[in-house]
Amino acid sequence: MATSRRAAEGDAAALARMLHGFNTEFGLASPGVAVVEERVRAFLADGTKEFILGFADGDDEPRGFAQLCYFASVWAERPIAHVDELYVVPDRRGDGIGRILVASLVARARERGAPSIGLVTGEANAGARALYESFGFRNDVEVPGATRALSYELELD
Amino acid sequence: MATSRRAAEGDAAALARMLHGFNTEFGLASPGVAVVEERVRAFLADGTKEFILGFADGDDEPRGFAQLCYFASVWAERPIAHVDELYVVPDRRGDGIGRILVASLVARARERGAPSIGLVTGEANAGARALYESFGFRNDVEVPGATRALSYELELD
Repeated sequence: MATSRRAAEGDAAALARMLHGFNTEFGLASPGVAVVEERVRAFLADGTKEFILGFADGDDEPRGFAQLCYFASVWAERPIAHVDELYVVPDRRGDGIGRILVASLVARARERGAPSIGLVTGEANAGARALYESFGFRNDVEVPGATRALSYELELD
Repeated sequence: MATSRRAAEGDAAALARMLHGFNTEFGLASPGVAVVEERVRAFLADGTKEFILGFADGDDEPRGFAQLCYFASVWAERPIAHVDELYVVPDRRGDGIGRILVASLVARARERGAPSIGLVTGEANAGARALYESFGFRNDVEVPGATRALSYELELD
């Protein structure tokens, strides 16, 4: 059975390899493993981000991870959780690592007292959407009639 | 012509009235104007959030606002901007306040050196979507084939 645990500073190199692998797999830009590792280590040290590692049964190398952050809201006393990234390496998909990562990040956000947890995923990513929906995540805005919540982005570089 | 300016601590009460009005209009929970005002003042004081006020021509009471925050990313040297809220009071819509608020928040995010700026809006909110799209905001994930970027949320309360 897949397992998970919170990452510590000693996990920065493994996280950086997976983060870089994620962007490489999807054709996105990456500043490279060394730069990402330095940022991950800094985020772990100062608490800017939290990372949860996922392991296949009997394997001590992490094969997936989730990255979480928390941000203040005018609407809530406690910061809201946000999932920046969730990834499982290609050859370990279907082993339950994604499911235990989602269970773990929801549990961690509850432990922190977050009133809610958000994330963005692609419409065509049916597997990820079904996984999130199985935990109760909803893709709607609370406003009546506004139906699905769409994430927009503008590049400024 | 509509105008805009960055909000200062003295604007906390006006911002709180609009924030409370926003949630009241859309049937969402609000802790009340006094609690919201206290949070807005704290966010303005410590820089957790930035607010931009929008004014109709010749009016010195703000009739709309945008709320911005910035968060760290493993992918970028500078924090990414996020629009938490954008609102224009019902009887001043169509006066160009929304447009100047979007122009101002994009300019402010550039000034801060943010590599990108994101936001979430409702699929049925055609006016807001057209406004954002006119500034170049895109509702797609960068991943090939993943089409639209959907925002998911799980309530934990």
